[in-house]
Amino acid sequence: MSKEVAIVGVGQTAFTRACGVTIKELCFEAFKEALEDCNLEPKDIDESIICSAPEYDKQRSPAGAINEYLGLNPKPTFYAESICSSSTTGIRVAYGLIKSGLSSVVAVIGFQKMSELSSREVQERMGRGSDIMWESPFGLFMPAGYALFARNHMKTYGTTEEQLAKVKVKSSKYAFLNPKAIYQREVTLEDVLNSRVIASPLKMYDCCANADGASCVIVASAEKAKKITDTPIWIAGIGSASDALSIAKKTNLTGLTCTVEAARQAYAMAKVEPKDIDVAEVHDCFTIAEIMAYENLGFCKPGEGGKLIEEGQTYIDGKIPVNIDGGLLGKGHPIGATGGSQVRTIVQQLRGEAGKLQVKGAEIGLVHNVGGVGLYANVLILRR
Amino acid sequence: MSKEVAIVGVGQTAFTRACGVTIKELCFEAFKEALEDCNLEPKDIDESIICSAPEYDKQRSPAGAINEYLGLNPKPTFYAESICSSSTTGIRVAYGLIKSGLSSVVAVIGFQKMSELSSREVQERMGRGSDIMWESPFGLFMPAGYALFARNHMKTYGTTEEQLAKVKVKSSKYAFLNPKAIYQREVTLEDVLNSRVIASPLKMYDCCANADGASCVIVASAEKAKKITDTPIWIAGIGSASDALSIAKKTNLTGLTCTVEAARQAYAMAKVEPKDIDVAEVHDCFTIAEIMAYENLGFCKPGEGGKLIEEGQTYIDGKIPVNIDGGLLGKGHPIGATGGSQVRTIVQQLRGEAGKLQVKGAEIGLVHNVGGVGLYANVLILRR
Repeated sequence: MSKEVAIVGVGQTAFTRACGVTIKELCFEAFKEALEDCNLEPKDIDESIICSAPEYDKQRSPAGAINEYLGLNPKPTFYAESICSSSTTGIRVAYGLIKSGLSSVVAVIGFQKMSELSSREVQERMGRGSDIMWESPFGLFMPAGYALFARNHMKTYGTTEEQLAKVKVKSSKYAFLNPKAIYQREVTLEDVLNSRVIASPLKMYDCCANADGASCVIVASAEKAKKITDTPIWIAGIGSASDALSIAKKTNLTGLTCTVEAARQAYAMAKVEPKDIDVAEVHDCFTIAEIMAYENLGFCKPGEGGKLIEEGQTYIDGKIPVNIDGGLLGKGHPIGATGGSQVRTIVQQLRGEAGKLQVKGAEIGLVHNVGGVGLYANVLILRR
Repeated sequence: MSKEVAIVGVGQTAFTRACGVTIKELCFEAFKEALEDCNLEPKDIDESIICSAPEYDKQRSPAGAINEYLGLNPKPTFYAESICSSSTTGIRVAYGLIKSGLSSVVAVIGFQKMSELSSREVQERMGRGSDIMWESPFGLFMPAGYALFARNHMKTYGTTEEQLAKVKVKSSKYAFLNPKAIYQREVTLEDVLNSRVIASPLKMYDCCANADGASCVIVASAEKAKKITDTPIWIAGIGSASDALSIAKKTNLTGLTCTVEAARQAYAMAKVEPKDIDVAEVHDCFTIAEIMAYENLGFCKPGEGGKLIEEGQTYIDGKIPVNIDGGLLGKGHPIGATGGSQVRTIVQQLRGEAGKLQVKGAEIGLVHNVGGVGLYANVLILRR
């Protein structure tokens, strides 16, 4: 296995409805936790990459403002964005900057303060992340886009609304054990099925919640990592891909082609196969998204995702434990912070630090982070 | 000299008041010119990095929209931003992704369509790029910030308004010979001195103009570069640094500390000194910015920038020719496109393709690109 770039520290704020602090303070909290996680100080950081979805904050170009607040001047900084996959995009760039020799230790900070805006304004921002010329003005953005995928999946493979709902039931069980999750209550199949319709067949509990939060992942060269920690978590594989923004131009409406391509790259680089993965975090912005991820990441065959959750194979003691921290559905989805939070969970699993949520003997983990309606996808394979 | 990553293709639209096309079409024009410059096709591009200042466009997360329009799916793409230095930030990231082996050929596309907004809205966006809590609400953003630097420079070093004005006179002379520049008219010292005051001592002609435009720089690994072109331009040095966003927290008001630090890194990496530079593009968003850049990049001692322009040493036949394409003052400043345009000019100079604007025998060139009021700085040293 290639041991060239490692994750040495992780941090995350609680994900909440409204954090009540500025974006600078929010990022500082995650940064501080990550520094403490690996006994580093700001002076040890060579550069920062600041990641979020744009236009939620009054502060434009947040990288400069946050980098200053973290005490990192004159270190380089910039802003990296691919909507919901922004912070794994930042980690991929950090990998490049480190392996190229331009930096040795990079802090990737993802954040979102969605409470800054009204619910109506949040909907408008989300709409602007879809095709603003031909689609979102007619209502075809996040929930409606994933609802189209759900309908197609149900029609093509016989997936049921109950199977979708079971994803949320699993999520709520693990979120209940994750003190940083927005939802601290287990829900039943009936709760999900009886929740109000958002975009049929997706109901309220099929959708993740807007949230405030920040995450920080500290990435380091092999040389530095070995000095910093006894438990570096290596970035063994990394893949990234895009698909059309316009849903009308997508070639597949039963899965995400960008996930398939990003996973192909990551598995090839890490020289592992889906069956080798011990624990995974997948991008479950909607319940259907988790079922498609099972299939697109190769945890089961196309069309068998509904069966996989039905059989309980993605629970903590199943064939392939998925989202054993609550996922987006249970933790909430502070857009730019999500990828870093997924990475934190897998890092803790591979270090054996996941407590009640520990997957026994986990050695190889996978992170799958998607931006937009299958527009961007990043897949990371991590090893202890 | 290290020959590991090269620039193989460059393209740029005309910089105009109002382009009359969408941001996708604008980027396509620059991308097409860059592809034709090196005989590549979209299929030869491994990934794209899309760079601009945020919140000028109705389309949120423009990377996905533009990447699709350029025919690049399923290649990875994301958005990189450091306001006015966004596209050189993108080039630095491309360097990292290529040298790390994640990609071999990367298209860095910078753009801005400022005509999408009213002048008042543009001012608001610019204000939000300064400290929105303590400074910009009180008027301290771009022009006022640089005016503070100008006043301090005049007080500390005796720099004069005439010396500032001479920077614009030089710019206009070269912009007149650059068909892609927004200004196609030479101005006199009197024109500059008599133009209306924007933020004293800066007058209208001391400030660059808002513009629409796009640029594209295609970066490649050594192996690919040698196959693609007979005239690769090597990225010999690259430096990046930040300073405080808040002007109240800056430690120096007669120069940009981030430029000094980024230049130090770039010179060290390229193993050259300021006296070795044959031609430079510096970030002259205001006339004072060019004079400070002379000093901060080491072309003269601190305080001697005014004398350098007064003596004509930065003209095409001077000691160190600077902005021999009109610079931001002459070409206009479509924020995200500017860094790529600067790189294009230096690449053409080093290839010997600059026509009437050719600096004879130029072998080593420098690009200096700043974001915000000395918030971010990137310095690139290029060699043929």
